[in-house]
Amino acid sequence: MNPKLKYNSDGLIPAIVQQTGSGRVLMLAYMNEFSVQKTLETGLMHYWSRSRQKLWLKGETSGNTQRVVRSFMDCDADSLLFEVEQQGGAACHTGYESCFFQQINADGTLAEIAETRVFDPEEIYRK
Amino acid sequence: MNPKLKYNSDGLIPAIVQQTGSGRVLMLAYMNEFSVQKTLETGLMHYWSRSRQKLWLKGETSGNTQRVVRSFMDCDADSLLFEVEQQGGAACHTGYESCFFQQINADGTLAEIAETRVFDPEEIYRK
Repeated sequence: MNPKLKYNSDGLIPAIVQQTGSGRVLMLAYMNEFSVQKTLETGLMHYWSRSRQKLWLKGETSGNTQRVVRSFMDCDADSLLFEVEQQGGAACHTGYESCFFQQINADGTLAEIAETRVFDPEEIYRK
Repeated sequence: MNPKLKYNSDGLIPAIVQQTGSGRVLMLAYMNEFSVQKTLETGLMHYWSRSRQKLWLKGETSGNTQRVVRSFMDCDADSLLFEVEQQGGAACHTGYESCFFQQINADGTLAEIAETRVFDPEEIYRK
């Protein structure tokens, strides 16, 4: 099963997650071999949580699962790309659709993108 | 300058590169602090080549530079997203538009996406 994938020294491979249709990049997360296997088997995105050091079914807590539409590996076999259908409209734990909601200006300053949060994280995660 | 960015233990941060307009994800590469600075200053994508251990101006050899349209950081400040205008129509050294030209099927087998190479790598890199 994907013998060609190259995991880094921590046994992880970065995965880019993109919303099907709009093409918006939602997040970048890391997978180990088992989470790649679970993702392909179930059709739901599973990651390796580096902070919690455990398998992480995306949406486990929030209900905002990600259904896999198409999966790709890159030319070097050391990064993955998943086209997904994001449930609940938001991938980010902050309530924004995408984790990339902060734009970096040419002078290095930051600006939050003018968009509305899809959910209030306090409501979702403190129930 | 971007004091908030979190580089990994090798001093690197992953950067997702996306074609402006189509939204196609072209590649994932790594940047160190200096390449982030050069990218923002010049408006041309600069990476850290892990294989050559040096600053890498994308397109230096092939002419296929990437002009930055917009830059983003994610909620954790540990990954970057760049919307770019890809010169020459192909980001991948194989001649394909995107480095993600191999689709992974649910059973883990691979299938090359049915698309034409934009250039012949032998012609570009052996001149």
